[in-house]
Amino acid sequence: MALRHIALFRWSEGTTPAQVAEVEEVLARLPEAIPELDAYNFGSDLGIGSDTFDFAVVADVADEQAYAAYRDHPDHQAALGVIRPLLAERASAQIRTGGAG
Amino acid sequence: MALRHIALFRWSEGTTPAQVAEVEEVLARLPEAIPELDAYNFGSDLGIGSDTFDFAVVADVADEQAYAAYRDHPDHQAALGVIRPLLAERASAQIRTGGAG
Repeated sequence: MALRHIALFRWSEGTTPAQVAEVEEVLARLPEAIPELDAYNFGSDLGIGSDTFDFAVVADVADEQAYAAYRDHPDHQAALGVIRPLLAERASAQIRTGGAG
Repeated sequence: MALRHIALFRWSEGTTPAQVAEVEEVLARLPEAIPELDAYNFGSDLGIGSDTFDFAVVADVADEQAYAAYRDHPDHQAALGVIRPLLAERASAQIRTGGAG
């Protein structure tokens, strides 16, 4: 059993593609910096659904302790510093999964 | 490259554990019924975060066509018939991922 953290973001009006690219850049650095991340998937919504959020992050870790290590890691906190000013809305959950994927 | 569909649910007040168990039962049947599902993870929020949604579903499929097959499959539509009456709020997104997991 593993733990999956899911976060969906809706960007504030006026958020630019360059700002979203910066979010992707800071998130892309996290798997190397945070060994607790067994898998890390994120990206912009594909625009194929209705009333979707704009961006999703899915972090797969072993357990609650590994999730806390990810959440509190200074590089993750720095990423949140880039993300938070752009947020209009955020939705999140943590669930148990069968494995790392 | 693959496609990941993410849906987060917040249950209406008064939703019972038995109703959530029924949701889990109908979702658990989908991977066998829908061959387009490469991976399917779902479950109740673990209660370790703040202001989290109550339940998450993550479906991994190959591409947009496989996602549409999942979305429109009669067994998935039947599952939505169980879920929708319980919903206070829903958040979703579809993103590109590196693989099936």
